Amino acid sequence: MPKSIVNCSIAKSLAIIGERWSLLIVREAVMGSTRFDEFQARLGIARNILNARLVSLVKDGILEKQVSPDNARVFHYRLTEKGRELLPVLVSIMQWGDRWVQKDIGAPIILRDRKSGAGIKTLGLSTRQGKAMTFDDVIIIAGPGATPTMRRRLARSGADTP
Amino acid sequence: MPKSIVNCSIAKSLAIIGERWSLLIVREAVMGSTRFDEFQARLGIARNILNARLVSLVKDGILEKQVSPDNARVFHYRLTEKGRELLPVLVSIMQWGDRWVQKDIGAPIILRDRKSGAGIKTLGLSTRQGKAMTFDDVIIIAGPGATPTMRRRLARSGADTP
Repeated sequence: MPKSIVNCSIAKSLAIIGERWSLLIVREAVMGSTRFDEFQARLGIARNILNARLVSLVKDGILEKQVSPDNARVFHYRLTEKGRELLPVLVSIMQWGDRWVQKDIGAPIILRDRKSGAGIKTLGLSTRQGKAMTFDDVIIIAGPGATPTMRRRLARSGADTP
Repeated sequence: MPKSIVNCSIAKSLAIIGERWSLLIVREAVMGSTRFDEFQARLGIARNILNARLVSLVKDGILEKQVSPDNARVFHYRLTEKGRELLPVLVSIMQWGDRWVQKDIGAPIILRDRKSGAGIKTLGLSTRQGKAMTFDDVIIIAGPGATPTMRRRLARSGADTP
């Protein structure tokens, strides 16, 4: 990762999940796949690539590899808490795709609340108090983990970009 | 894209934004960069790769290339509405990274509401009525754009995975 962006949560996250197959494997896990052959058949991914990605996702703590209670030669890959917390990332990408990429054919899948059957709200920014925010409402300031370079940059830009 | 996942808004979106540099370029645009040299210096990306990504992002309707009003040889790349609507994707990735990747050093940048200065709520799933949902509250059903294969799969899984 270039040094200029090493201090960015987005860049560091994308170093883990930015490879396209990684998020598609997480999507498959959300949809209930746990075994190598399930991921392989449903994603149509080459076995060696799938194996490499699963090893990475386990190493990065997104999936756990567990021996099947029924058969010691069968393994299940299950989302960890860190992996489950990628759900808003997947849903925000899905909602963007439903709106901008699939708009002519309609959403392929729909998420609902298990108990009430209610639909899911489109993810959008809001203040902690619940006020909806537009793109232009957002300002960016240096956080506790900002490097001196990032602090200078945000100060130069008046700390109110965008 | 393998045929098995061609009907997925996530897969189709990742075909557009799944290359790691693409989202980092969008992040730079959100932070106010508009000129080639700004993107280049701030991302530390090779000029030929940056050029190819900018061409793709313009072609995919995420950035617009505009001639500078001051200098006909200078171009500005600005986010379109389609590009601006990637903000929840970037913010969900940033929040996940702040929590799971940067947790020891703190968030590098913080987003706030321009008018009130209020902090931004962590993006999470909720029903249209505003009830917060956990991972286990989510069920997946076939939408209007589902292929026969996807419909069969969701029916087989009892339409209630995860």
